[in-house]
Amino acid sequence: AYEVTWDAAAAEKGGYDTFMEKEIHEQPHAVADTLLGRTDAEGNLVLDELHIPVEELRAVDKIVIVACGTASYAGMVAKYAIERWTRLPVEVELAHEFRYRDPVIDGRTLVVSISQSGETMDTLMAVRHAKELGAKTVSICNTHGSTIPRESDAVLYTHAGPEIAVASTKAFLAQITASYVLGLFLTSLRGESYGRSAAEIMAELQGIPDKIEQLLGTMDRVEEIAYFMADSRSVLFLGRHVGYPIAMEGALKLKELAYIHAEGFAAGELKHGPIALIEPGQPVFVVVPSPDSEHGLHGKVVSNIQEIRARGARTLVIAEEGDEDVVPFADEVIRVPRTSPLLAPLLTVVPLQVFALHLSTAKGLDVDQPRNLAKSVTVE
Amino acid sequence: AYEVTWDAAAAEKGGYDTFMEKEIHEQPHAVADTLLGRTDAEGNLVLDELHIPVEELRAVDKIVIVACGTASYAGMVAKYAIERWTRLPVEVELAHEFRYRDPVIDGRTLVVSISQSGETMDTLMAVRHAKELGAKTVSICNTHGSTIPRESDAVLYTHAGPEIAVASTKAFLAQITASYVLGLFLTSLRGESYGRSAAEIMAELQGIPDKIEQLLGTMDRVEEIAYFMADSRSVLFLGRHVGYPIAMEGALKLKELAYIHAEGFAAGELKHGPIALIEPGQPVFVVVPSPDSEHGLHGKVVSNIQEIRARGARTLVIAEEGDEDVVPFADEVIRVPRTSPLLAPLLTVVPLQVFALHLSTAKGLDVDQPRNLAKSVTVE
Repeated sequence: AYEVTWDAAAAEKGGYDTFMEKEIHEQPHAVADTLLGRTDAEGNLVLDELHIPVEELRAVDKIVIVACGTASYAGMVAKYAIERWTRLPVEVELAHEFRYRDPVIDGRTLVVSISQSGETMDTLMAVRHAKELGAKTVSICNTHGSTIPRESDAVLYTHAGPEIAVASTKAFLAQITASYVLGLFLTSLRGESYGRSAAEIMAELQGIPDKIEQLLGTMDRVEEIAYFMADSRSVLFLGRHVGYPIAMEGALKLKELAYIHAEGFAAGELKHGPIALIEPGQPVFVVVPSPDSEHGLHGKVVSNIQEIRARGARTLVIAEEGDEDVVPFADEVIRVPRTSPLLAPLLTVVPLQVFALHLSTAKGLDVDQPRNLAKSVTVE
Repeated sequence: AYEVTWDAAAAEKGGYDTFMEKEIHEQPHAVADTLLGRTDAEGNLVLDELHIPVEELRAVDKIVIVACGTASYAGMVAKYAIERWTRLPVEVELAHEFRYRDPVIDGRTLVVSISQSGETMDTLMAVRHAKELGAKTVSICNTHGSTIPRESDAVLYTHAGPEIAVASTKAFLAQITASYVLGLFLTSLRGESYGRSAAEIMAELQGIPDKIEQLLGTMDRVEEIAYFMADSRSVLFLGRHVGYPIAMEGALKLKELAYIHAEGFAAGELKHGPIALIEPGQPVFVVVPSPDSEHGLHGKVVSNIQEIRARGARTLVIAEEGDEDVVPFADEVIRVPRTSPLLAPLLTVVPLQVFALHLSTAKGLDVDQPRNLAKSVTVE
């Protein structure tokens, strides 16, 4: 006779040790499903539920994104893309600050909230406040029928599927994707095109899930580094442009999961203060923009790597395949597939998620249920 | 016979051990001098050099503040006040990010740069970019005849006197003061008043130097705490509303001067991630808003203190005189004189400067010349 042991939790985790690991691997699907059905038979972009007349959307003269935590970093990424595509000014505000500071908004302001659960109390209060002030509200949300989408004028659901791990991963990628879809929708509505067309960018977005899949297949070395670094006291993260919020997100994941003092900076800030922290052995992740980036940004970040390495930092560099300029100054190079600069965050964040997951595991911590944190923050 | 030993450096430091300590004590003058001569015989506000026609200033529909490091925190503080007073939307951008991200600005945008030296390369490049895009530019600067004011359409000098210590203190207070003067000037021009009149607020600002003086007389306990905490590995800083940039500035000072991992957060973010870092003994400074603050902000921050203390944090609370609500949850209460909520940053930052100064001294570090940092960052 033999015993059958059946672990319901393991089954739920689809063979992975933790929900977070499972959810990291579901990211290609989260992005693909969030893109699914976003174009009609004529190739026009469509939103899920839109109760704002098209003329009112065309009249929008400012976008304010309200969110908290990881969702606010998705908003920061989206700001770069949406401003670029629509030429509308986009502000990103922490929902709990927005609510309490007499924001200047009116009927021509589109307030976009981002919340995985749709129940984040700070974000809900910000949406209600925006409505009182006459703004149009769009909810980007992962949970059908939750409070924030119900109270908003329009909804764009992220189709990431249920996210169980407290630290957000696939919902983050889906939030960026949905924000991009919204940006492209507004671009089409406004009949403007700045650089590439909305259709071209959508086509490139469709190719992202395969690139994430490919990237996930190359994470062995990141896992190894995380195990080596299990006793790190602090880790810094640098990025510029869309890489700046990714640096912030990489740091937040490490705080949440490994209780390590981690901080993300705009690389340009380094010389204005934080470089004082660099001492021999200090690990620093650097999110390098594509060599195709405009304004010579790539070269500027390569200089930043050089500067911190000259002061003894251990540089962990996330760079595009084929970017050889970073090699002389990198202790480790983590490669991501090539893509256009504005879509790169959907790739560059992945190694940072995997790093935080394995460093937390190496420290013997509970990856899915970090101390002090709740999945949805339903109180103010 | 006796020898006369004369130490030129000590004389320059006016009896203080370091330039930073001297400059901290010069803050009442820095604020008073920056306010001096800002009103004409009729009581109207005046700027130093203004080559923007008044009609164009009245037509401004958006303000963008560009700055780096500490100056960007002055900008964040100013955002709360200027939006409130003028009802113009104000964005604050790191100059090195602004320059490279295709900002949406035009002839009705007022771009306000803040730089102590007037030579900060990133900020200069941002100003030039703004001018190319047709924006009006105002420089808030501490150095007469430097490049940024020379290239700007208008200048509002901060009269803080030369700042020698690398870590900015009196220039920061003067920057906030000058930004407030600019905000009040625009408020008067626009003929609007939201709440109190510009004259009333100016009058209250005039009283701030005495309050800083009074506060500086009560810093013995802060010095003592800094010495006790000389071996701290990390210190966190929390604030809301105008206290949020002050928390960021408190953290930056500690990074710059004591090479300690310090991070400032919007207190509302705590539950969205950073609270995972709180473990028994973790020191956390909390900048508490005045009990007179609107929207029940004071009570919300008191709850935040309660939450982190329940998880073992050592709470160092900066609170107004007479605020008894914080006492049960504070390991230390550092008192600041009463003032209206928007002016409080000119006081609450002072104990954080004094703390960083003495912690750096206690560690035997060079307060005036922290490692890796230059006073003016004249390269990109």
